[in-house]
Amino acid sequence: MRLKKYTDYALRVLIIAASKSAGELTSIKEIAETFEISTEHVRKIVHQLNKLEYIHTIRGRNGGIQLAQSPEQICVGQVVREMENDFVLMECFDAEGNQCVLLPKCKLKHALNKALQAFLHVLDDYTLADLIVNKQDLRALLALE
Amino acid sequence: MRLKKYTDYALRVLIIAASKSAGELTSIKEIAETFEISTEHVRKIVHQLNKLEYIHTIRGRNGGIQLAQSPEQICVGQVVREMENDFVLMECFDAEGNQCVLLPKCKLKHALNKALQAFLHVLDDYTLADLIVNKQDLRALLALE
Repeated sequence: MRLKKYTDYALRVLIIAASKSAGELTSIKEIAETFEISTEHVRKIVHQLNKLEYIHTIRGRNGGIQLAQSPEQICVGQVVREMENDFVLMECFDAEGNQCVLLPKCKLKHALNKALQAFLHVLDDYTLADLIVNKQDLRALLALE
Repeated sequence: MRLKKYTDYALRVLIIAASKSAGELTSIKEIAETFEISTEHVRKIVHQLNKLEYIHTIRGRNGGIQLAQSPEQICVGQVVREMENDFVLMECFDAEGNQCVLLPKCKLKHALNKALQAFLHVLDDYTLADLIVNKQDLRALLALE
């Protein structure tokens, strides 16, 4: 079972932005270098996080990226829902791609759906603030200190 | 979020085997044709399900595949655990492949792990018997009637 890399990186972008001190900005370049991923990949994720109003980007020479909401307001479950967006756990979750003959009467899909809801429900109990309670440790790892 | 196709098909093999009447066997050919997948793929899955003692295969002309346990004894959560086997939800779940600098102090992995346990816990409440309560409907879809 895997989440998309996109979701993984989106959460990391939020963690890095939340690990900053007041007024401190991050940047696509910093994120890409920190996690050793392409700037193009980061750019797409930042674009979506911006569209979803989790972050805003400040243009110009001293520009950069910062959170658009307080970490307490950003629900991890919600971010995962928005970044994953499809949750095709198995073929039968894909309305267009399903070829399984059992679908009309299958009880497995219902069980998997219940399991998925339990998964997301746990993440709904976490905000971004919970992920940076040890902010100083994270800042040290991110070499921000 | 996706489960492996391998897990999807393994559960379908168990459902088809459980949908048979006493003494009725299924076969790699029947499974492959029913789900429109390659016999090679089915063969691998059947081999593993056999190794795990969920099914046994009877050789010979009138041979085939049948459940090795009663459907009530086969836990869906356990099958998913065994077929998925790695659960690399994100990069940090992959001991060898992780490159994320945050890992030593990250709280996200803990949250995701808790969510994963909740997911599996729901599936632990289901046995194969729960997936075939409407066995006659499934038999009709499988054209066994």
